[in-house]
Amino acid sequence: MKVALKTKAYAAQAPRAELTPFEIVRREPGPNEILIDIRYCGVCHSDVHQVKDEWNNGIFPMVPGHEITGIVTEIGDKVSKFRKGDKVGVGCIVDSCRTCGSCGEGLEQFCKNGFVGTYNGLGKDGIPTYGGYSTQIVVDENFVLRIPDALPLDGAAPLLCAGITTYSPLKHWNAGPGKNIAVVGMGGLGHMAVKIAHAMGANVTVLSQSLKKKADGERMGASGYYATSDPETFQKLANTFDLIINTISAPFDADQYLSLVRRDGTMVLVGAPPEALKTQAFSLIFKRRSFAGSLIGGIPETQEMLDFCAKHGLTADIETIPIKDINQAYERMLQGDVRYRFVIDIASLKQ
Amino acid sequence: MKVALKTKAYAAQAPRAELTPFEIVRREPGPNEILIDIRYCGVCHSDVHQVKDEWNNGIFPMVPGHEITGIVTEIGDKVSKFRKGDKVGVGCIVDSCRTCGSCGEGLEQFCKNGFVGTYNGLGKDGIPTYGGYSTQIVVDENFVLRIPDALPLDGAAPLLCAGITTYSPLKHWNAGPGKNIAVVGMGGLGHMAVKIAHAMGANVTVLSQSLKKKADGERMGASGYYATSDPETFQKLANTFDLIINTISAPFDADQYLSLVRRDGTMVLVGAPPEALKTQAFSLIFKRRSFAGSLIGGIPETQEMLDFCAKHGLTADIETIPIKDINQAYERMLQGDVRYRFVIDIASLKQ
Repeated sequence: MKVALKTKAYAAQAPRAELTPFEIVRREPGPNEILIDIRYCGVCHSDVHQVKDEWNNGIFPMVPGHEITGIVTEIGDKVSKFRKGDKVGVGCIVDSCRTCGSCGEGLEQFCKNGFVGTYNGLGKDGIPTYGGYSTQIVVDENFVLRIPDALPLDGAAPLLCAGITTYSPLKHWNAGPGKNIAVVGMGGLGHMAVKIAHAMGANVTVLSQSLKKKADGERMGASGYYATSDPETFQKLANTFDLIINTISAPFDADQYLSLVRRDGTMVLVGAPPEALKTQAFSLIFKRRSFAGSLIGGIPETQEMLDFCAKHGLTADIETIPIKDINQAYERMLQGDVRYRFVIDIASLKQ
Repeated sequence: MKVALKTKAYAAQAPRAELTPFEIVRREPGPNEILIDIRYCGVCHSDVHQVKDEWNNGIFPMVPGHEITGIVTEIGDKVSKFRKGDKVGVGCIVDSCRTCGSCGEGLEQFCKNGFVGTYNGLGKDGIPTYGGYSTQIVVDENFVLRIPDALPLDGAAPLLCAGITTYSPLKHWNAGPGKNIAVVGMGGLGHMAVKIAHAMGANVTVLSQSLKKKADGERMGASGYYATSDPETFQKLANTFDLIINTISAPFDADQYLSLVRRDGTMVLVGAPPEALKTQAFSLIFKRRSFAGSLIGGIPETQEMLDFCAKHGLTADIETIPIKDINQAYERMLQGDVRYRFVIDIASLKQ
């Protein structure tokens, strides 16, 4: 196979540095690997966390991006699931041990030996992984998703992280008809949670800082929309929800939100506030409530989610940007100024 | 019906006061009510919390005691479930609204309108309730439990709180064969959790501050016993347990214990530390763990637990005391110096 392995990218050279043009070299695709021409890459909140090295595990230079869609341009000899020209996606995971119990169950996100992240990870070859803020990527076919024809590559990109991160807990905790679901935070994750929970048949309520995005939330399927800045919200909605999908990644009052969970209900964290959350034992004990967390999703479930979204016509609401605007996009994202996901048009990187 | 309603008791006259002799007057039993001659009353850790008014809701004078066993001495005209001479028990709940969803499901502990506590509660007549540190009590038959013949009244008394408080979460979170269960804290609740989880067929491990009670734990059914004072314990047992029943009622490091829960497992609080517990989001997210709470149990499940204990020959390990030793017993209990539950011989109050 002869492919051009030099690849244009955008990278942060050091923690908190701005992203600037950078050249990487992709590996020669192996027998089970696929070369993907990247068309779009969503901008995830965790990209900002990682570039700022807020989780203290940053590998620099760092090329972020794990909401990747594109077209297969080369396949290894033993690739059986994909052909050249296929519409494909890559999410947060590009490899795992494939032998532990969780991998055996298709829950690679919980791989006992640690999955290989699409960026800021170390491949099995010990080489740092670089993500989707680049023109092409090489991935083992077992970690590549098929993008159904019904989904456009731009609006589908955020499904690879924001979509699966919300679909997985909604499915795991049985969202569906007759269930009251609250989505806390009306951002990239939150707006997908609203769409997916609604499509699953649940009754969806949004809890957002303000009512600014109320019309959007209702359009996406929310039947209730409340401002968390209004203290009456917490009184009015006490003991209401079977499930709260909490997307907040800043510190928040966990007891206040737990008070909205009805008996035997669960609040699931999908965001990761950097500071410890405080919980009163009584918040859990008096209604047999659970406080849980969920992490993206495994490869089979990610495919299931994509097929579900295609069936229900769900994509992210996006604002497409050229790669040169990425630093400004980070600033705007930190201010909540995006409806609802930035997606980089990778054509802008190829020029 | 003619019954002597004047009743000898022990009460705390004010928060943090020592318990001293006190006389109360029980109400005339109504048509659905039962007069019980109290024979034994277990001493629960929450008795100490309440006498010290640590939950800031104390009604004084306070007669504690909600692990009551005795004999039916009078029954109202419409009582159908019990007869004079029956062996009965009264736990933490003596009434509830009986109309809300939770009451309809037999989960009176989660009564929407608040259950009536056996002591330090207000009855529907607005009169404070007085508990089992007394010679007799009047209770609606629907909140009275049958003590199976196989169970002695002294060793059965602690089942009414310590037994059901541990049985209920073990049942709810599916303890049984093939499950790894940890019991944190080898006290009144903990020792019952070990016995019940073992009888349910689960693999039981005790986590106690030291190894002092190891032989007891193993006798009760634990196959593993570790000291939490040894940091290696937390390394060795990482990601091990499907379920942790955490009985600690003092502040503890929630993240440290959550690290012992395997993927999709749960740590359940049954004790109530007075201070907020801190939890890192990553402790929940990375293994899809849940942090939950459980509160005693409803009347039907309490009866189920008593029948289960009779079938498996389970009672509490007790140290019987005369009522005059109650203040000293509180001191000893705070120091963990009891194996494993003090039970007041109420005969000592009748003299």
